[in-house]
Amino acid sequence: MDELTGTKTSPSLRQEKRPILDHSLLLSDLYQLSMLEVYRAEQMNEIAVFELFVRKLPVRRGFLMAAGLEQLLEFLEGMSYRDEELDWLRSTGMFSAPFIDRLKDLRFTGDVDALPEGTIFFADEPVVRVTAPLPEAQLVETRLINLIHLQTVVASTAARMRLAAPGKQLIDFGFRRAHGAEAGLLAARASYLAGFDGSATVAAGRHFGIPIFGTMAHSFVQAHDDEAISFERFARARPKALTLLIDTYDTEQGARRVAELAPRLAADGIAVRAVRIDSGDLAAHARAVRSILDRAGLSEIKIMASGGLDETALLSLCSSGAPIDGFGVGTSLTTAAGAPALDCAYKLQEYAGRPRRKLSEGKATWPGRKQVYRRYRHDGAFQEDTVALLTEAIDGDPLLRPAMRGGRRVAGLPNLEGSRALAASQLQRLPEPHRALGFATYPVHMSRGLTDLANSMTCSMRQP
Amino acid sequence: MDELTGTKTSPSLRQEKRPILDHSLLLSDLYQLSMLEVYRAEQMNEIAVFELFVRKLPVRRGFLMAAGLEQLLEFLEGMSYRDEELDWLRSTGMFSAPFIDRLKDLRFTGDVDALPEGTIFFADEPVVRVTAPLPEAQLVETRLINLIHLQTVVASTAARMRLAAPGKQLIDFGFRRAHGAEAGLLAARASYLAGFDGSATVAAGRHFGIPIFGTMAHSFVQAHDDEAISFERFARARPKALTLLIDTYDTEQGARRVAELAPRLAADGIAVRAVRIDSGDLAAHARAVRSILDRAGLSEIKIMASGGLDETALLSLCSSGAPIDGFGVGTSLTTAAGAPALDCAYKLQEYAGRPRRKLSEGKATWPGRKQVYRRYRHDGAFQEDTVALLTEAIDGDPLLRPAMRGGRRVAGLPNLEGSRALAASQLQRLPEPHRALGFATYPVHMSRGLTDLANSMTCSMRQP
Repeated sequence: MDELTGTKTSPSLRQEKRPILDHSLLLSDLYQLSMLEVYRAEQMNEIAVFELFVRKLPVRRGFLMAAGLEQLLEFLEGMSYRDEELDWLRSTGMFSAPFIDRLKDLRFTGDVDALPEGTIFFADEPVVRVTAPLPEAQLVETRLINLIHLQTVVASTAARMRLAAPGKQLIDFGFRRAHGAEAGLLAARASYLAGFDGSATVAAGRHFGIPIFGTMAHSFVQAHDDEAISFERFARARPKALTLLIDTYDTEQGARRVAELAPRLAADGIAVRAVRIDSGDLAAHARAVRSILDRAGLSEIKIMASGGLDETALLSLCSSGAPIDGFGVGTSLTTAAGAPALDCAYKLQEYAGRPRRKLSEGKATWPGRKQVYRRYRHDGAFQEDTVALLTEAIDGDPLLRPAMRGGRRVAGLPNLEGSRALAASQLQRLPEPHRALGFATYPVHMSRGLTDLANSMTCSMRQP
Repeated sequence: MDELTGTKTSPSLRQEKRPILDHSLLLSDLYQLSMLEVYRAEQMNEIAVFELFVRKLPVRRGFLMAAGLEQLLEFLEGMSYRDEELDWLRSTGMFSAPFIDRLKDLRFTGDVDALPEGTIFFADEPVVRVTAPLPEAQLVETRLINLIHLQTVVASTAARMRLAAPGKQLIDFGFRRAHGAEAGLLAARASYLAGFDGSATVAAGRHFGIPIFGTMAHSFVQAHDDEAISFERFARARPKALTLLIDTYDTEQGARRVAELAPRLAADGIAVRAVRIDSGDLAAHARAVRSILDRAGLSEIKIMASGGLDETALLSLCSSGAPIDGFGVGTSLTTAAGAPALDCAYKLQEYAGRPRRKLSEGKATWPGRKQVYRRYRHDGAFQEDTVALLTEAIDGDPLLRPAMRGGRRVAGLPNLEGSRALAASQLQRLPEPHRALGFATYPVHMSRGLTDLANSMTCSMRQP
């Protein structure tokens, strides 16, 4: 990978995960605290089961890829109110003093079952199931959705880009237009998980051990009075994994300058690894630049493209055979601009041993504790899924796996590299219409037990 | 405001601003460090002028509202590498030891001029101008764009919602689907700045003094065996600013339960302030609910609506006269789903006293240090803007104002309430087609001096 472009952190330097996000419990909706106060007053402390699921796929998504579980577990493991937060809550007068005093001891003590990160999933399938005393299971809702939603929208976008550009290097360039720092950092993680090769974001290298890459900006070229001089100075000061940006003034002229410079640098042991094109008709420029470099005997110099790319552009560039070896993808990746939000919900499915159902128009839920079973074709491709009650015996591979028991994560959860390997294997097993980024409907069945339960509850609950 | 719904932090509790975001300098692109190393090696330390601007308005935006400056200034004032970050950088082997050692002393010492938060602006107009030694001005690029871009996309979205729903209460409900915690928190700030009345996000109350609001979730109703009992228990435990969610099973039935309950609560001094509807045909349900409540003599109970609302839905509900008093807006606000990203750039316009220009196809920049001058009609509405070189004498109100000098913020910058007042006044002065959320083109002229400079540079720089 590092032969193409940029600088890469060594795998030996990859750090173990560590909490770096702000997991303050005040990063939450006020109503969670209001409901908690009532639950405490009513001593409603029995076991609740909540499930996070997507009601409907976005228009431009034929499948989704689960991501963000690692950060969710980190949040749940460390969950508590800080003293200064409780002081502030007290100062607002919104809650009773005894209630706030008891918040100090609040921890998450429940169980989590979830789709492992990298798992492909569809509408109506539970992604995360939380089983915990009602106040805890309710209180975590806001941040739980926030963490899973963000990385899932980005991983789902990145997975489409990975499918659109097979064999090409893909680098996340999008921190600057991500929605804040946490989004930028987690987008680097989610895109790497889904198959990107790395990120330009330095902190993603430090915190997640993700390979990081960098080239140069137009301003570097502009700050010099002469483009050729800017290339040479950069090359001599930063000779490793050297990539030169050639479109500041005129792309083909930039390529000719590289062709002139490269032999002189080679004489001093410096190799130009790649050039980057960031504007204009990328396919046409890439062909022209490839030709200029090849005629100069520089076929080993790769071509990298960037600038407003989304999966449609990647698909078009790759299928047209444009001689581009790698892509820097920014805004459309880190803002998931094609589908920046999911119609997802975290809903109460059972309380105190009884299934629960919401009947709101267009938003009715599937009650009870559920599992997703996937069956495969003989070639390993996904064939169909069934969503069923936990109590049913259903053929297929159960997709939700234990992630946390009694507030502690279970042993043997995959690390980021493991999740990335799962994501790659999932993309290989995706049926062909979906691999081709089509929007064919994938068969997701609701089991007999589940439909019977839902129907019986609809009848009984509509009674006044 | 608090008579409608929810709980509100008292203005007396509003905190002064304090840094709460993670402003690590590693939350940046790797190439910034690479270029910095070269600039240091070349002793390229003269004054650079960079400007942030939007190349083109998104399809669904006729105007934009500047926001995020406060957080940018906070970042620039505190900017430095932490020891453990430098240790990590050293461990990667990507940079020379003397270079890393010198990073320890790096601070931002430059000037910032910017559109005050709440200012309405258009394409090609500088939003932020940074004047600083080249290495500093370059290094801040990634986080600078990230901070201004996020709040600007959200404020611009919120401003459209404010215009769509005049006189209605608007509350941010969208933390859960914002792209991470920072996005959720800053979206609460940007939407309040643009005219929202408050947010459901507790931390937004703590850190920015924004009024916070909360109702109840469907799960609260579901966890009880009986909807009427759930209403009564909530009311007695949380009697202040009481809002009941009535659509868990059947909206009109929920309203009748409120009608039955309200007199009994009133006898104990508890007032139901509002009901919330979150599903179905909101206008039709609101009319039916209004009628049920009015017939029961409960015309003082307000109706709040939520559920997948965007500015188009708000416009339609408000123009149809649906009896809805306030709206909770989530996903479409905090992800700015209609226009989640701006085609913006932070470009070098001058270095060492000489104007600079990038000529990349479709991305050529306007060179030189610039100011935006706005002229108004006799009724105060915006008439036209002119972007000009600082050295030109142009009629109109100069929009970019000093924000920082020598690395310290200037005195007298507006606080959040001041910016919110500016935003309200800007929306009032917006020309009518834009106020009606149309996409008429607003006249932005490039001055003669600017076009002459740009043309002369194009000719000279295209030379090989």
